[in-house]
Amino acid sequence: MKRTVLKFGGTSVANIERIERVADIVAKRVEDEGGGFAVVVSAMSGETNKLVGYADEAAGGKLVGDQYDDEYDVVVASGEQVTSGLLALALRKRGHRARSWLGWQLAMRTDTAHGKARILGFDGDDFCNSVDGGEIAVIAGFQGVSPEGRISTLGRGGSDTSAVAAAAALQADVCDIYTDVDGVYTTDPRIVPKARRMEKISYEEMLELASLGAKVLQTRCVELGMNHNVPIRVRSSFVEDGDAFPGTLVCNEEEIVEKQVVSGIAYSRDEAKFTLLGLPDNPGVAGDLFQALSEAGVNVDMIVQADSKTLGKKNMVFTTADRDAELARQTIEKVRDKLEYDGLELNRNVAKVSVVGVGMRSHTGVATLMFKALSAKGINIAVISTSEIKISVLIEDAYTELAVRTLHTAYGLDTE
Amino acid sequence: MKRTVLKFGGTSVANIERIERVADIVAKRVEDEGGGFAVVVSAMSGETNKLVGYADEAAGGKLVGDQYDDEYDVVVASGEQVTSGLLALALRKRGHRARSWLGWQLAMRTDTAHGKARILGFDGDDFCNSVDGGEIAVIAGFQGVSPEGRISTLGRGGSDTSAVAAAAALQADVCDIYTDVDGVYTTDPRIVPKARRMEKISYEEMLELASLGAKVLQTRCVELGMNHNVPIRVRSSFVEDGDAFPGTLVCNEEEIVEKQVVSGIAYSRDEAKFTLLGLPDNPGVAGDLFQALSEAGVNVDMIVQADSKTLGKKNMVFTTADRDAELARQTIEKVRDKLEYDGLELNRNVAKVSVVGVGMRSHTGVATLMFKALSAKGINIAVISTSEIKISVLIEDAYTELAVRTLHTAYGLDTE
Repeated sequence: MKRTVLKFGGTSVANIERIERVADIVAKRVEDEGGGFAVVVSAMSGETNKLVGYADEAAGGKLVGDQYDDEYDVVVASGEQVTSGLLALALRKRGHRARSWLGWQLAMRTDTAHGKARILGFDGDDFCNSVDGGEIAVIAGFQGVSPEGRISTLGRGGSDTSAVAAAAALQADVCDIYTDVDGVYTTDPRIVPKARRMEKISYEEMLELASLGAKVLQTRCVELGMNHNVPIRVRSSFVEDGDAFPGTLVCNEEEIVEKQVVSGIAYSRDEAKFTLLGLPDNPGVAGDLFQALSEAGVNVDMIVQADSKTLGKKNMVFTTADRDAELARQTIEKVRDKLEYDGLELNRNVAKVSVVGVGMRSHTGVATLMFKALSAKGINIAVISTSEIKISVLIEDAYTELAVRTLHTAYGLDTE
Repeated sequence: MKRTVLKFGGTSVANIERIERVADIVAKRVEDEGGGFAVVVSAMSGETNKLVGYADEAAGGKLVGDQYDDEYDVVVASGEQVTSGLLALALRKRGHRARSWLGWQLAMRTDTAHGKARILGFDGDDFCNSVDGGEIAVIAGFQGVSPEGRISTLGRGGSDTSAVAAAAALQADVCDIYTDVDGVYTTDPRIVPKARRMEKISYEEMLELASLGAKVLQTRCVELGMNHNVPIRVRSSFVEDGDAFPGTLVCNEEEIVEKQVVSGIAYSRDEAKFTLLGLPDNPGVAGDLFQALSEAGVNVDMIVQADSKTLGKKNMVFTTADRDAELARQTIEKVRDKLEYDGLELNRNVAKVSVVGVGMRSHTGVATLMFKALSAKGINIAVISTSEIKISVLIEDAYTELAVRTLHTAYGLDTE
């Protein structure tokens, strides 16, 4: 039996008029395609912020600590609950059988990390039977139930993750993520007007793009899709004729016939570069440094170690998110006595530009082309980091747009 | 161990500022009195109407029928969910341990009559252990869980019923209903400025007053309190010094030392009087009439049957709620062929005035005093109906205030 999961985000269900439009889209797809349908919805846009605002007021400010997160989840999860009931009503009005499913009803089991819970499993027997029986399941996204039977929420982009989890439980043929963009692009179209919508992209590439800051899908949602082999399609809920805009399918590499060497160019401006000068060249120094940062909650991204000109010393360069830069600086200064470094430099005017493509695995010269293309425009590379399917460089942030456009052209991604 | 249940309605939690005030009241009581506390909250005032409005829009109007009520409940119950989380947060901010409890978590088991569900039971072991362990339980009122595991709501005044059910489960010493009035009065103080707040009133009297239109407590909440012997106290959440305004205790008759013959005067303007003239004097005619009305959903209140001047005929007088009058008239006209009555008169300018008191059981002359007092003011009585502890009369509605004032004085209820 064919099974389909659809997901609509907050702007697609921002008010009753838009919920009616979503009901039209869902009803048409059910009528055209048949089979079992589940629809995952976010809170009406603005609602989550309003609820978080209430909770902040009641709790006395945002920085009240983790021990309040369980009740934040109770308050915030009500937003998706409302939308799921409303969409079920709108679908019934159109003559379809439909019912809402909340996180605890599914049951979407999560850990106890309230506010950023991870899905542990999905007991959805009742849910699958309902869908197979022809009732449209309208799922309140973003929410689950903890081992203690409390409401949990999945954190940023959680509704996408809910949708993929539901698709995995249903062994759905596809999970369609309706959003305000019409697909995944080779790069940010605001920077490169010639950016192209990709017809297909592999999970691995999408993961790299997501972690590099392309905001279409969250990393966890793509991971879950990859682990359960759920094809995820990103498509627009705002175009009149959906059939003409099939979006982008995130799927297994094997299903992509015509592979590009480089599929997309990503960039991130939220970067800060630290240089630790004259660190003693002892084993364990790097371990001490990065443990201190990790304990402070700072994620370190690129790391380069080089010999210093001074004998027995070395220099260490690494990057963090710019929003963590101040915390990282304080943390490093706190362990100065232990690390015995000579100097600390912080440069916050940097950006990271990356080229991503599974084709790199079987092609040589991809990195060379990148370095030459940037060099030809006079763009200096501060740090390089690579993975199997990605090359990232750190550059001065003023050159970000130029670098992205240059690479987009160099790898043949521009539309005609 | 002492256990206390507190309930705060929608106006008491209308915004964050008021929720903070409620948190202050709860915190003070916990600190002053100790023991286990549960707090039941309604939705922020206005929120339920907003959510019903959304659901009406999505469902396509109010008159969509029962088959939509389950999803209405999903949408509407989110209101109490939000308040329970917010109050738990506000109590934690004050250094108290607190957590929210939703209907399905308690579990407050109900039947499947969505929108007006009845409580079947309360599995509250976890809940009772939590309260006995010193954690303040903040209960989302008005909601339960159906046998199918769906969210149900209890209908009008449902949060009061939730509170009494929680008090019964906890075997609480008292269930304090905080509201916008400071107690139950001998009659409506807007009509009789000399009306007195009652210190105590029996469940039976409160039931009569509630069913007669005194809006302080709903009938089902009082019934539940009577069945489980839960003392219910009605008190104001808006007075500065709560200790000076102890409210009214609804309790067993035995606990009321100084019993009044008549405790209170109630009135209702939502009345309509029907007179069916020349009904055949056959067995079964009354049954046919009231069955037709019952099937149409019309509640009949007072009924008087009298012989007609025509041999073999009789007249029937009965009352319904005025809001049902038109439906009742149409229903009766539909069965005219079957009932073979000669004529139908409808008078919508009537009101019902009632005196209530358990003392009537042991005192004579209570009705006589009523009839004489009304007669002395020239007020004509159209219909009389009595129960063990109540006498109701139907009068012309223009005389309502005069009748209430007259009876309040006649039975010695005026304050000095």
